[in-house]
Order: sequence, then structure tokens, then C-alpha cells
Amino acid sequence: MPLDSVIVDRLRNVVGPDFVRVDAESCAAYGTDALKRGHPADAVVLPANTSEIARIARICSETRTPLVPRGGGTGYTGGAVPVRGGVLMSLERMNRILAIDQDNLIAIVEPNVVTGDLQDAVERVGLFYPPDPASLRQSVIGGNVAECAGGPRAFKYGVTKHYVLGLEAVLASGEVIRTGGKVVKNVVGYDLTQLLTGSEGTLAIITEITLRLIPKPPARATLRATFMDVTTAVLAVTQLIARRVIPAALELIDADSLAAVSAYLKGRTLAPAGTGALLLIEVDGLPELVGAEAVRVADACRDAGATEILRAADDRERDELWSVRRELSPSLRTITPLKFNHDVVVPRGRVPQLFAVVEQLRRTFDLRIPCFGHVGDGNIHVNIMVNPGDEAEIARAHAAERALFEGVIGLEGSISGEHGIGFAKAPYLSMELTAPTIEAMRAVKQALDPLGILNPGKIFGSASRTSGSE
Amino acid sequence: MPLDSVIVDRLRNVVGPDFVRVDAESCAAYGTDALKRGHPADAVVLPANTSEIARIARICSETRTPLVPRGGGTGYTGGAVPVRGGVLMSLERMNRILAIDQDNLIAIVEPNVVTGDLQDAVERVGLFYPPDPASLRQSVIGGNVAECAGGPRAFKYGVTKHYVLGLEAVLASGEVIRTGGKVVKNVVGYDLTQLLTGSEGTLAIITEITLRLIPKPPARATLRATFMDVTTAVLAVTQLIARRVIPAALELIDADSLAAVSAYLKGRTLAPAGTGALLLIEVDGLPELVGAEAVRVADACRDAGATEILRAADDRERDELWSVRRELSPSLRTITPLKFNHDVVVPRGRVPQLFAVVEQLRRTFDLRIPCFGHVGDGNIHVNIMVNPGDEAEIARAHAAERALFEGVIGLEGSISGEHGIGFAKAPYLSMELTAPTIEAMRAVKQALDPLGILNPGKIFGSASRTSGSE
Repeated sequence: MPLDSVIVDRLRNVVGPDFVRVDAESCAAYGTDALKRGHPADAVVLPANTSEIARIARICSETRTPLVPRGGGTGYTGGAVPVRGGVLMSLERMNRILAIDQDNLIAIVEPNVVTGDLQDAVERVGLFYPPDPASLRQSVIGGNVAECAGGPRAFKYGVTKHYVLGLEAVLASGEVIRTGGKVVKNVVGYDLTQLLTGSEGTLAIITEITLRLIPKPPARATLRATFMDVTTAVLAVTQLIARRVIPAALELIDADSLAAVSAYLKGRTLAPAGTGALLLIEVDGLPELVGAEAVRVADACRDAGATEILRAADDRERDELWSVRRELSPSLRTITPLKFNHDVVVPRGRVPQLFAVVEQLRRTFDLRIPCFGHVGDGNIHVNIMVNPGDEAEIARAHAAERALFEGVIGLEGSISGEHGIGFAKAPYLSMELTAPTIEAMRAVKQALDPLGILNPGKIFGSASRTSGSE
Repeated sequence: MPLDSVIVDRLRNVVGPDFVRVDAESCAAYGTDALKRGHPADAVVLPANTSEIARIARICSETRTPLVPRGGGTGYTGGAVPVRGGVLMSLERMNRILAIDQDNLIAIVEPNVVTGDLQDAVERVGLFYPPDPASLRQSVIGGNVAECAGGPRAFKYGVTKHYVLGLEAVLASGEVIRTGGKVVKNVVGYDLTQLLTGSEGTLAIITEITLRLIPKPPARATLRATFMDVTTAVLAVTQLIARRVIPAALELIDADSLAAVSAYLKGRTLAPAGTGALLLIEVDGLPELVGAEAVRVADACRDAGATEILRAADDRERDELWSVRRELSPSLRTITPLKFNHDVVVPRGRVPQLFAVVEQLRRTFDLRIPCFGHVGDGNIHVNIMVNPGDEAEIARAHAAERALFEGVIGLEGSISGEHGIGFAKAPYLSMELTAPTIEAMRAVKQALDPLGILNPGKIFGSASRTSGSE
């Protein structure tokens, strides 16, 4: 449904005619993200600054037009998809690093700075921004904040929310708020910074982000250990923690995933025959620490019954050890072109039970379900592989998805540790949260976006009472 | 104003007659906290569990009675003071540690577990709960969460919010919500866990807390370094960070504070003559790391121009080094019986400028203002000493307080890093936050407590539109 031409003219008046697109191609291209279930926007607008964003929000409020902010478009739950049409606001022009303050360990950025670019920039001056979603070369800080992105380093360093000190954001009304600031401790009023972090663009449009940085760890060591099964690999992790080691990365890869990578790499063998689980472990810090920790890591893996333990001697070998993890995504595509990529999370000690649940799903629903993930956090990527044309398989995959979520909640876990709810997981929200808890969240949504124009149809799904378009 | 006897009877019906107090003595005793500016409650109620709390909230909602939750009563901004009377709900009977899950590094506690008791309990099994407010032997986890308490270890380990994984809480309506859970990554819906953390009892009554634990660091080293002035001490901190060391404690004590402690300890000399600033530095972790870091700490202090560097050889010497910090509070009481204890925070590099501001205040307002604090975070306790009977001095102290906050905000800091706003700092809220930001916070308050019965008069002060009693 095309947008009223009066609205389009008003948008053009704000950002200039070059930065409003209403052609079908643009509206479709900006209407899809990594979920690959898109919906076209009615118009795409590319603001240059906070003031333009505030004016656009006012136009959308006055005309009850859905307004969907978009960063890198790398989300797996459709968070940036304008499911109700309306105005898609791409923040791509707001991509500057405004400050890197070495004295105070702070960076100030516009929302569309690519995460990997920020990491490179701060590392050049000896600092470190730990959150490292797999998409870090495409995804942007604003999107990372909106989704509270995680990554392999979360076990030691925490997720995005642990690095967000302050925000500038535009409310649906067009009001500009400033939350938090440049200090690491701040208890003045409600923590709107943390409330907006992970709110998936439904409460405000984030226009500037103040991030906490830490000193870059000067040394690291990388190890790979293989195990007969997931249970012994998790035992190694437990023994490692008992030895007071918190690795910077602790990635688990299961047999199905290993097989896919081996096939993709033309049969190159990555692990001893019979390997049921592989751990990639990286420790970092002062050189003295790294040496001591690497010894403890190897001891813990050996004691747990590792079948093989390798330690990278240099960067080239490190690169080689990591290749299995790096090649996972393209490898899975050789199984089927589409995957339902779930980021479930359970208390760490229950990871073996989660794998038992998945094994049951494979049998019950006759599906390929390779798994890998951040085992330190209990955050496992469960990839239900499907052929896009195979309706029966897709139906089985959806049934498996629901059964997976039921299993995860039975293990006191969460249906999303990294990707958020978007619209893809909205039907499952009430499986995890009680009705009064969802009502409290809706009340917060209603409070900050009373007309329901910001990213409608997300988190609460179509049943949301907060959606102005219903 | 006594509470309507019908309400008192209903409360007695919920918790039993022994656990409702309406005598003047109880109402006064429970109506004051560490701020020492109390207001009597109309009734004190001591519930035993969540279900009773929910029923009490419903009674208060139906009768529009203010309801003020209270933990340890150690807050410095009057957060637990029932400034509008009503029902004071002490959570003292809910003081059980429900679980310490060693496999998953989690503790589940009722709100009134004393923070130090929890620390002792988890350390006995090799785990660690880092947040360590000075009041940890009196304050309770529920209050720590409500205020988002900090402490010396925050620089390395973060503040309370970084350890809160999940909450059970009762809304003003009596609805029970459950936020977050047992997993460290969770992006399902809004982060109500973080929103409630630091909300000072104005959004919900916290009834159960799931906390993240970490392995206990097996070794530590403690150093003391003295400097001619604050600027060189801060330079040492900067050099230390440049050497990639993040101490577990990094406490700065100024000359006025040192003088008070020396006088209190009967003239025992704590530092070389002419000392303008003292740093207490503690590093912890694996033994190999602690040794390496201690060397770097000493190097950094020496390079910055330390006049003396001591390292504790054993626990007895560690205790001796820490005595100056431990004796600070009683020592300050020998200057005057009352202090306006402020917990301002600035970007760390600006701590010397903050001390320049304080020096100006000393001269302008003729006041004793000893300072000490967590210099790694830029979080400095500025103690404006006053004699309770001296009206003129109190007036000067209030003027100094306002000037301090103006100075802090000029340095891009915050007026509260640890204590929260309560009612004592409510008049200053708008100095730090813009009007639209305060409006957004009020909208959140209105959404979760539409009648304004929960802890009215706090954060937003008397001008709050959300207060049902206005």
C-alpha cells in the first residue's frame, strides 16, 4: 500500500528528495533481513542526524504511520522487517565514530558504525570492545544495542548491554531523550539505557551510543580439544571453571556440524574418528596469565577424557583451529539452503540435556539439526535445516521448533539468548513469560509509544494491544 | 495520621496480628534509615512470603495507601523512608538463601539476605559474589538490587546490576511478575530485570532474586602507595590501566580523610609527611597473575611519582593496610557527628578536576570536606561535614551540595554513582536529566504503578504527577 503522497512530501522535506525512496525495488530490498521472510516498506527514508529522525517520528506519530528503524539488517528474527509496512528508516548515513576517549575508556558512536570497524579502531589504540556477534563485519552497533547482541566472548566479557553506558534516543513522539552518560556507575533515575538495550526498536530509535571500552588483552592462547560426546565436553568446561579459568571463548561444535564442515572442506578430517563434540577454547590476558591458564585448560580437558588436545603455536595455527568454526555457516548451506537458526540457552550444566532433547527431535521429526554454540553460557545455536520448497519438511521443522522451545523451558532456559523475538519468535513469547510479566512489558511499551507506531508487530506479535494499526 | 482501622485489620488478616505494628515507637523506628531524616510510618507490616506481599499490595491499591518496601535500612538518600506515611513493609522475615547452584554459578535468595552473609556462604564453596557496598554486614541483597549498590570491587567486577539474572517481583496491583531467569543470556522481551534494578522500590517489590556468581579468585595482593597530590595518584591509575591491569580494588583517600583517621587512631602516622593522596590497590586472580600484576602496579605507582609503596606480605599486613579505609567512617564522626555523604562520579580522567571543585567548595563555604572513593570508576565519596545544631553551617552545606552537583555535571559526571536519588537528591534530578528524559521515566512509573502507591515521593520528589496521594 503506497504511502499517502502528502506524507512522502513531508519526509522529502525533512531529509531531502535523494533520501526518500518509494520505488518497489528499494521498498522490497529494505524490507528483508537475515531471517529471509521480508515485507516491503511503503517508503524508505535515510536520515542524516538526530534532528531529522525526531522530525520523521513526529510525522509518523501525527499520521499514525508505522516507523521501523533498521541497522545492518543481519537479525535472525525479522526485527528490521516492516511487517505492517509504513516507513522504513535506515540509519546507514549515521555511521561515524564520534570519539574514542583513551583516558576514560569510552567510545561514542552513531548507530550505524559497523561493529568490526569499531573493534578495529579501538584496538589500534590498545583498547578493546568485546561483544562479537558472528555478523560483526556486517552488523552495526545500533542494531547490536537494539538486540543486545552476544557472541563467543560473552562468557568472560558479557554481552552488549554490559558495554552500553549511555544513549541518545528519539521516542515515537519525536522527543529526544538522553540516558546514562560517560560514567560506569550511574543510579540517577530508572535505567532507561538498559531498558532500551534489547528492546528491538519498539521503544525508541537509538541515535547515539556511549560505550565502555576495556584495555586490550595483550596475549592469548588457543586450544582445541575433542571428546567422545557432548557430556564429556561439558564436563571439561565444568572442570575448567573449577580451576578458576574463565576463557575468552568457549565454543562447542557437535558431530553433525563437524561432518558438514568436513564435507564442505572436501573431506579434510578435522577431528579424530568418533568425535562427538569439539571444544575451541581461547584464554586471554597478561602473558603470564595466559600461559598459566592454557596449562589449566589442557589439564581440565585431559581429566574430562579429551581424545585429543591441540594448542596453537602461532597465529597461523590459531587461524587453522578456528577454521572449523568460521566455515560452519557456509558448510551448513550445503546441507539445505535454509535453516531455522535458533539461539536457545539453558543453565550451563544442562547443556547435555539440551542435546538429548535435540537428538529426540532429529528422530521424531526426521530432520538434520546440527548444533554449535557458546557452551560457557549454555547458549547453543540449534540449526533446523530445511529445503525451502519442501512444505512437509517445513511443517515438521515448525513442529520441531515448538518442541525445542518446550524442552528448553523445561530445562529452565530461554528461547532466545542472542537473536531476540522480532516477529519470528513472537508466537512463542507466552511459552516463556507469564501473562502478568507480558502485561507489564506491554504497559512499558504503551507508556513510551502510546500510538504503537514504533516497529509494530514485534515481540508481542499481532495480539499486541499497543499496535496503533490494529 | 493513623491508618484506617479497617486497613489495619485487613493487614492483620494477611500476615497475622504479630506482624503488624502500629505503635508509635515501631512506626518511628522503621521510618528512618541511614540518611537520618525519617518520617514515621502509619503501620509496619512484616510479610513472610510473596503471596502475602501480593495481598498487601492489593489492599494498598484498593485503599490508595502508600506502600514502602524496606530492606536493611542502610541507604543514604532516604529510599526506605515513608515520607508520605502509609504502610512500611519490612522484608526482614524473607531472609533465606534458597539455593547455591555450584554447577551453574547461580544463587537464589529472598530479598533480606544480608549481603555479607551471602558472600560468606558462596565463598565457602569456592564461589564469589563481588558487589561489596561498605554496608555489606547490614545491608541486604534486595536493597542492593533496589539501589543497584556498588562498592570498591566495581571497577573490575561491576555493580549489582551485573549480577542480577532474574527477579520475582510484586507490582503495585498485586500481580506477581517473573523477569529473566537462570541464564546469563536472555533477550526475550524487555529487560525488566534491569529496569527494576535501581528503581528504588518505586516500580515493584522485589521478592526473589537470582544472582550470577563467579569462581572465587584464589589469590590476591594488596599494595598501598602514597602521593604528593591527587593528580599524581590519578596518573598512577592511568598508567596502571595502560599496563593492562584492572585491580579488584582501587581506593583513593585524600589528605583531609587521612588526617581524620590519624587523629582517630591517636596520632598514629599512616603515611609520609606531606601525603596528599593515598591509593589502596588490590589485585586478584590466579596466583601467577597476581604476582605479575603486583609488579605492574608497583611500577605504575613508581613511574607516576609515588612517595612510598608498600606491599602486604600476609593477611595481617593486608589488614593493616586496609585499616585506614576501614576506620574512615568512625574517624569522620570525630570531625562532626553528621555528614552529607555524596557519591558523585565523573569520568575517571577528570577526578583531579573534581578535587579542584571540592577544594573551591571548602574555601567558599568554609566547610570540612574529606573525600575518598573508588577512583577506578571516578566514583568519589564527598563528605560535607556538618554540626546538626548549626543552622548556618547546614545552610552553607546545602549550598555547597548544589555547587558540587553543578561542578560534577560540568565534568560530564553524575550526581549519584551508588546511593540513588531517594528523596534527599530528588530536588537535583533535573540538574542531570533533561525534561523529556524525566518525562519518559515518569511514563514508565505511571505504566507500572498507575496509582502511585509504591514508595511515593522518591526519585521524582513531590512534583511527581505519578503520586496518587497528590
